[in-house]
Amino acid sequence: MMSDIRSSEATLPTAVNRAWRTTVPVRFSHCDPAGIVYFARYFDILNGVVEDWFCECLGIDYHDMIGPRRTGLGFVSAGAEFTKPGFMGDHLDCAIVIERIGRSSLTFHIHATRAEEPILVARMVMVTTSLETHRSIPLPDDLRAALERYWENLQ
Amino acid sequence: MMSDIRSSEATLPTAVNRAWRTTVPVRFSHCDPAGIVYFARYFDILNGVVEDWFCECLGIDYHDMIGPRRTGLGFVSAGAEFTKPGFMGDHLDCAIVIERIGRSSLTFHIHATRAEEPILVARMVMVTTSLETHRSIPLPDDLRAALERYWENLQ
Amino acid sequence: MMSDIRSSEATLPTAVNRAWRTTVPVRFSHCDPAGIVYFARYFDILNGVVEDWFCECLGIDYHDMIGPRRTGLGFVSAGAEFTKPGFMGDHLDCAIVIERIGRSSLTFHIHATRAEEPILVARMVMVTTSLETHRSIPLPDDLRAALERYWENLQ
Amino acid sequence: MMSDIRSSEATLPTAVNRAWRTTVPVRFSHCDPAGIVYFARYFDILNGVVEDWFCECLGIDYHDMIGPRRTGLGFVSAGAEFTKPGFMGDHLDCAIVIERIGRSSLTFHIHATRAEEPILVARMVMVTTSLETHRSIPLPDDLRAALERYWENLQ
Repeated sequence: MMSDIRSSEATLPTAVNRAWRTTVPVRFSHCDPAGIVYFARYFDILNGVVEDWFCECLGIDYHDMIGPRRTGLGFVSAGAEFTKPGFMGDHLDCAIVIERIGRSSLTFHIHATRAEEPILVARMVMVTTSLETHRSIPLPDDLRAALERYWENLQ
Repeated sequence: MMSDIRSSEATLPTAVNRAWRTTVPVRFSHCDPAGIVYFARYFDILNGVVEDWFCECLGIDYHDMIGPRRTGLGFVSAGAEFTKPGFMGDHLDCAIVIERIGRSSLTFHIHATRAEEPILVARMVMVTTSLETHRSIPLPDDLRAALERYWENLQ
Repeated sequence: MMSDIRSSEATLPTAVNRAWRTTVPVRFSHCDPAGIVYFARYFDILNGVVEDWFCECLGIDYHDMIGPRRTGLGFVSAGAEFTKPGFMGDHLDCAIVIERIGRSSLTFHIHATRAEEPILVARMVMVTTSLETHRSIPLPDDLRAALERYWENLQ
Repeated sequence: MMSDIRSSEATLPTAVNRAWRTTVPVRFSHCDPAGIVYFARYFDILNGVVEDWFCECLGIDYHDMIGPRRTGLGFVSAGAEFTKPGFMGDHLDCAIVIERIGRSSLTFHIHATRAEEPILVARMVMVTTSLETHRSIPLPDDLRAALERYWENLQ
């Protein structure tokens, strides 16, 4: 059953290798007076990665979903472990691995590396909501189908 | 030993009640086209809460620490569970509870509520670093002493 | 006629002295790797000043205007001269002076100082719009009346 | 003399046509509850455009300048006229035209369009500073040479 989909620990390196990925430049304004990426800005960067994943890989128009379709793609949980500091001028390779496709939620990880060196791993739980009521709604069919295809390809 | 300090689960409501707290207004620019606080901006809000906690409660000048003292106060881990959406015009009550004071790290929680209703709980691990080397250094003595006093007051 | 209201150059120091003002702390995350306030973040700070001016001084609920009343308060022009760099830990005194109240626009200046020293002067043109059509609409009556009262008090 | 370089009004369309340009996607987090790009975020977007102009076109490593070379590239003046609202999912074409190369300053314009439609025009005055003293210093030779070449190519 789709709501039980999980990527097992065993297959994680494989899954990361097969994952869709994108490269993100670390900009001046991502960094703070300590000279490294400000942790809150990382979460903003990660949302941009998700937007591009939707549009470029899943074939789902992220902005259309939130705009005309009035379907929220917000997070009920978001966390990250920051292994190494990021510096301006870095280019981060970000790969997305799905952990679980739920009824109205999607749990996934983003692995960011710089020249193979781990920079951060994030775990995020997205919930689809009605932007009228801010209550959860089932994953739209086109999104669910795209996520399942993506998940299959990572196995 | 101080590095083993923990606030037990049992005392959490007590600890939150006794905690230092501050009220944060939710601004227009914290919110996104979905009309609610953008999750990445919450983490930025939380850093502001930490700054005020240092300056107003702990008696440690946060900006002096990072500037002249060249001691980083960044995070190696940050995560939050978002229980209810926040809206512009909200006023969030944010309370800080220490989980653990380590050798060169501090683990704490921020509980944010809106009129008693839980909005989010964050768990963050701050590490003190040298801003020359970006490597961890022991908590400066004044910071450690202030944290221990704060922790005692919450018991 | 209201659309011709101007604060003359001659009365600027007087106007600034009489203006509503608020104090804004410069935070860690406002600053960049150069160690000073990042210019784009200043504009965000200024929007927060405007929000507080509406709510605390004009008696107009800024968030209610944009939310339930669906009236946009965006800018068609925004600029600033940055006289001195701002540093984290600074407290900026921000005063608002109206230049002109138009049919569907408001032109105003924000003067920010740090211990009497000028930090920046911004000039911004806000236009009220319908958030359905994104076209300009006349200033709502309550906002216009509040702005005119404010302007009178500065003379 | 270089400090008198100006792009005359007459040649503006030509200059914009010949200018280096880049395309910037408008992201979810650039937009506000009014559903359009938040004006402060535009200025942040524009700094990213400048970074890419330095690195991709001028051959000057923006991050190296601020980091190891300790040369600030901040603004003493920044302003924009916003002609049309930007929406998430838009792709903005941003072109940079130099107005003036001074002794320690650079004045330039950024013209942003969406499918030929003007979205904003910004005018910014960058000053090179020592990051030790935060005082202006002459434009570094390599930067000046690159700017002059760029300016020549636009004539």
